[in-house]
Amino acid sequence: MRNVWGESLQISIFGESHGEGAGIVIGGIPAGFALDFDALQMEMSRRMPGKDELSTKRREPDNAEILSGVFDGKTTGAPLCAFIRNTDTRSRDYEPMLPRPGHADYAAFLKYAGHADYRGGGHFSGRLTAPLVFAGAVAKQLLRKENIEIYGKIGSIYNIKDETADMNGFIEAAKKPFPVYDDACKEEMKAAILAAKNEGDSVGGVIECAVVGVPAGLGEPFFSSVESRLSSMLFSIPAVKGVEFGGGFALAKMKGSEANDAMTAENGKIRFLSNHNGGVTGGVTTGEPIRFSVAVKPTPSIAKRQKTVDLTRNEAAEITVKGRHDPCIVPRAVPVVEAAAAICILDLYMMGK
Amino acid sequence: MRNVWGESLQISIFGESHGEGAGIVIGGIPAGFALDFDALQMEMSRRMPGKDELSTKRREPDNAEILSGVFDGKTTGAPLCAFIRNTDTRSRDYEPMLPRPGHADYAAFLKYAGHADYRGGGHFSGRLTAPLVFAGAVAKQLLRKENIEIYGKIGSIYNIKDETADMNGFIEAAKKPFPVYDDACKEEMKAAILAAKNEGDSVGGVIECAVVGVPAGLGEPFFSSVESRLSSMLFSIPAVKGVEFGGGFALAKMKGSEANDAMTAENGKIRFLSNHNGGVTGGVTTGEPIRFSVAVKPTPSIAKRQKTVDLTRNEAAEITVKGRHDPCIVPRAVPVVEAAAAICILDLYMMGK
Amino acid sequence: MRNVWGESLQISIFGESHGEGAGIVIGGIPAGFALDFDALQMEMSRRMPGKDELSTKRREPDNAEILSGVFDGKTTGAPLCAFIRNTDTRSRDYEPMLPRPGHADYAAFLKYAGHADYRGGGHFSGRLTAPLVFAGAVAKQLLRKENIEIYGKIGSIYNIKDETADMNGFIEAAKKPFPVYDDACKEEMKAAILAAKNEGDSVGGVIECAVVGVPAGLGEPFFSSVESRLSSMLFSIPAVKGVEFGGGFALAKMKGSEANDAMTAENGKIRFLSNHNGGVTGGVTTGEPIRFSVAVKPTPSIAKRQKTVDLTRNEAAEITVKGRHDPCIVPRAVPVVEAAAAICILDLYMMGK
Amino acid sequence: MRNVWGESLQISIFGESHGEGAGIVIGGIPAGFALDFDALQMEMSRRMPGKDELSTKRREPDNAEILSGVFDGKTTGAPLCAFIRNTDTRSRDYEPMLPRPGHADYAAFLKYAGHADYRGGGHFSGRLTAPLVFAGAVAKQLLRKENIEIYGKIGSIYNIKDETADMNGFIEAAKKPFPVYDDACKEEMKAAILAAKNEGDSVGGVIECAVVGVPAGLGEPFFSSVESRLSSMLFSIPAVKGVEFGGGFALAKMKGSEANDAMTAENGKIRFLSNHNGGVTGGVTTGEPIRFSVAVKPTPSIAKRQKTVDLTRNEAAEITVKGRHDPCIVPRAVPVVEAAAAICILDLYMMGK
Repeated sequence: MRNVWGESLQISIFGESHGEGAGIVIGGIPAGFALDFDALQMEMSRRMPGKDELSTKRREPDNAEILSGVFDGKTTGAPLCAFIRNTDTRSRDYEPMLPRPGHADYAAFLKYAGHADYRGGGHFSGRLTAPLVFAGAVAKQLLRKENIEIYGKIGSIYNIKDETADMNGFIEAAKKPFPVYDDACKEEMKAAILAAKNEGDSVGGVIECAVVGVPAGLGEPFFSSVESRLSSMLFSIPAVKGVEFGGGFALAKMKGSEANDAMTAENGKIRFLSNHNGGVTGGVTTGEPIRFSVAVKPTPSIAKRQKTVDLTRNEAAEITVKGRHDPCIVPRAVPVVEAAAAICILDLYMMGK
Repeated sequence: MRNVWGESLQISIFGESHGEGAGIVIGGIPAGFALDFDALQMEMSRRMPGKDELSTKRREPDNAEILSGVFDGKTTGAPLCAFIRNTDTRSRDYEPMLPRPGHADYAAFLKYAGHADYRGGGHFSGRLTAPLVFAGAVAKQLLRKENIEIYGKIGSIYNIKDETADMNGFIEAAKKPFPVYDDACKEEMKAAILAAKNEGDSVGGVIECAVVGVPAGLGEPFFSSVESRLSSMLFSIPAVKGVEFGGGFALAKMKGSEANDAMTAENGKIRFLSNHNGGVTGGVTTGEPIRFSVAVKPTPSIAKRQKTVDLTRNEAAEITVKGRHDPCIVPRAVPVVEAAAAICILDLYMMGK
Repeated sequence: MRNVWGESLQISIFGESHGEGAGIVIGGIPAGFALDFDALQMEMSRRMPGKDELSTKRREPDNAEILSGVFDGKTTGAPLCAFIRNTDTRSRDYEPMLPRPGHADYAAFLKYAGHADYRGGGHFSGRLTAPLVFAGAVAKQLLRKENIEIYGKIGSIYNIKDETADMNGFIEAAKKPFPVYDDACKEEMKAAILAAKNEGDSVGGVIECAVVGVPAGLGEPFFSSVESRLSSMLFSIPAVKGVEFGGGFALAKMKGSEANDAMTAENGKIRFLSNHNGGVTGGVTTGEPIRFSVAVKPTPSIAKRQKTVDLTRNEAAEITVKGRHDPCIVPRAVPVVEAAAAICILDLYMMGK
Repeated sequence: MRNVWGESLQISIFGESHGEGAGIVIGGIPAGFALDFDALQMEMSRRMPGKDELSTKRREPDNAEILSGVFDGKTTGAPLCAFIRNTDTRSRDYEPMLPRPGHADYAAFLKYAGHADYRGGGHFSGRLTAPLVFAGAVAKQLLRKENIEIYGKIGSIYNIKDETADMNGFIEAAKKPFPVYDDACKEEMKAAILAAKNEGDSVGGVIECAVVGVPAGLGEPFFSSVESRLSSMLFSIPAVKGVEFGGGFALAKMKGSEANDAMTAENGKIRFLSNHNGGVTGGVTTGEPIRFSVAVKPTPSIAKRQKTVDLTRNEAAEITVKGRHDPCIVPRAVPVVEAAAAICILDLYMMGK
């Protein structure tokens, strides 16, 4: 299954950056759910480019046209297809035979023997995260009905780290337009992004996510572990190069006595004394919030001159990437990570214990 | 698909730690391949416990009985089932109603409403990695025919890090019985493991892996990205809590101009000047070695007294985990990580470009 | 996987009869294939309604808009999405609470708790075969390159049977606009259809199909047998109630000595002396043409008054189905059966031996 | 997915006729179900050979060893693996280079380039239906808890047809050791089988099945239609060459006014006045019994001399199939068809509406 993901909920993604548009087919949605279309559009606009000086100047309203699966404002149970047309595309910015370093251009050239739509990355483009956000927004609404909420925030940008003491702080941060807990931190991050932009460069960062309200018992040992399912979806997002759960790589430096999440019970109510396992043991949810972090590499499109090759002659060449690009995609990627999580958690929820 | 993984190659895993044994069905293996049974057994023994003072005293020969799919020493094209019987099991060591912190016990108890086989973690046990190693050993032999090799080494244990300057050093390290590059480092790691053991504690670490010789063009954009496929398999391994590709989380702190892998060409031959992307861009292999790291948490089974709950009465309780456990599973997990990678890469290879 | 089909090639179907339209996402198409758009449209028009007095008066050009996956007239290797907008829809013809006998209305009402799009059958409509024919037309072009051809003809309508002596006659018949071998038979069939129409009734029939040029060794024993794969796709077509391969149900009345396909060899060339197994033994192709037949029930929509129930009050009621309907869908279903076969055979071909 | 079937329930099949044995892994079984092992064994013995003069003299107790997934007599929720060892195998009966007409031998030879286990059909053997019957027996027990029952009977053998007036007669027949309604018919069938045996020949037949108690709303439009799912499983059974639902091929000769299942309601209770659609419309169950028939070809193994080819020299040759074979597999195939239906219906049931 190449372009399809999911077991109980299934999504099929399609589209290109500079073609007709990008879309998604969502199968398995329960019937009779009244979609909140304004909320869907609001999620779409969180990902939308062109909102401020920190992001690309490409401006697209990102309106999702619903092609199927909705009748009288409610889901019908049949597959829901949403399509987002491209409107502001300038394909003259792309030179097909000069692969942009850090991009999929070279891999795509080899994979498709030169036939890939190279304009703006084509099907590999971050543009495809627009339909992903749409599907995630639908999933979020369905999860909310079950009291499951997804919160994403910026953990770091470049070398600036934003920390939160507890889940309340985390949620508070997640609700901000620029989702960091510490406002001083926000200014530093913005400054780092603008500094990179001014140098013709870019920066990456880390996105943190928490899924709250998820019942115990979801996920499976081994191949459908919560970590397996979530990571397979998260690594679908362009530019994601690392995923960790709970303490993640920091756990590798701990002792068992520190890392193990001890438990206690008060008045018959069981609770964990820590959550180093990120709400998942043995691949199965424990009822604690699912916690994970995602490493986002710096935007590969930079204005600085870079070494590449000319694929027509297999010769060394140089490239200055034109086009309009985000000096840092981390802020715009937060709703994408949330969407990916929402799709995955809904799928696991529908699969049941 | 809960206990099944793969597209062109498919594995179905089954078994328990203290039941009859653990096994795997492998579908999609090409016909007519002469398996090297000694090499299979050698891979099995790399994972085997009881070899030295660093690992559990549970001693099992881990002989895989082949139940199907092989005729006259060659694969037939039909599903190959291998089964590894349990021999040295002591189920009296386990108390079903006292979940061991850091283990799947509590999640399993909730998921299966108290019906899970609790002995030694049952189906959640690391014991299930034995059939995984078997399947990986088969995959390795098939990949070797295509000049693809998988190398795994210890990146760190506790706070001790082993570094390699280049791929040659990496491969050299991977071939050692205790796979680290720096022998001084090995002694420090062993000391750290024994120190933890003496404290009744445990330590974790990081495993690094390289897949060399993989052709460009494998994997797909989005849901079947090389990272998605590999991570979904790697997070199936008990105790894995983080996966990163290439620079991984370190990329999040870089600038685009540093992180992008520039290219050049000499005499018509294209090569990359770095491999921060770990051999994968846009989810597709570039022809560079696939590089990834895996965070392994400290063994949850420790001799130290820990806080838990008594599930019969939903009351706070304490537990001292009995049984025979590894103070550090990282060395034994190296062949498991290699096996997981081999299965995944063979599947991607068979799917083709 | 509810609305997704395929292993190497994957199709995701969506849409409704009286909504925006119907579409399909096709994943796994090889890159660089120059689609013949005229041929695609010609296949679409074979299924199109309103061509003559034998079919519904609903007139739609059935133009497929390609939303993704094609660049400069060639496939890119990325998912191809085609969408066919509805243009001539009259939803006032449908009464939601009076399920039409023989239709999915009642089952859909129960399945989706009253939320299905009931207009013209909604997602259950034969209208969804338009995107299936599109996908099949793409598959046919790809198969033709491998010298594999799909031929469909009418085997019977009502009680009138069309027989062919050999494969040449079969192919000749398949190429006609009304695909029967015997022209006298054609007139009888048309008369039977018009007679049913004049009575406010409908008739069904049998469609025969042959896949010629398919190599030996495709398909798998058991769950991915050629028969399993083809039947799962063929029974997706609305109104199909039976599928048989080779001699099919007639084989049940034969002796082994008659039914077995004996073989011979001349000048080192092996051939079968009969094809009662329809080109498949043990689920795997033998190299002989794949032969199968499909039973199509009479169009459930008839003008005659029928007994039904009023779902608002759970009371007996009567219905006279309005709207514009085919008195016999068999002729229009021939390209649909061919399309289903083409998709399935291409998928098996891409999976390889 | 080659050797794996199912969505919510998943089965992976493995094994050979003359190798170690045949087995199955069943994933997705709910935890805590107390299996009735005697009933499992009784189902196994219904399929077992060697019981009377009508079947092969191969005698095997067909005891299923449970390798995983059961603890204290109850399912654990982990994959259940059952393995049935071969005991009475005589591989000297098989000549690898003389493909038996009507068998998979030739297709398997081409598919696996001569490496298939040819002994007794190897992985293609009807012997593999033993683990299928085991899985079906587990499914039946789980379905019974939901008041869903599966009934199979012989519809015809050779040219002798057994008819039942209604569902009561059907169920009565299904419960007999030789499951036909009319005892005179039974004697005729047995005579026909023995006559074929005496001629060194074989006969086929039709098996009819009814699934009673299945709720409305299971199955999906298109690719996961009840017919698609059931047929994909039924065509996995060796020798099955046709599948029809409800009226099936007879529907193709009816008019819509006859074929449509009219409905009525009495005292608020809706019921159908006929069941020509076999309990399924639009791919979805209506709540009526699911009815289908399966065409079983005559046993290909016959004592009569047959024309074949010598694959070592690609020359015409003759073969007299040795070994011990059923002159008619229809009676033994009844529990196999029931098992296939049980697995499929349980999977659909677990997927839910």
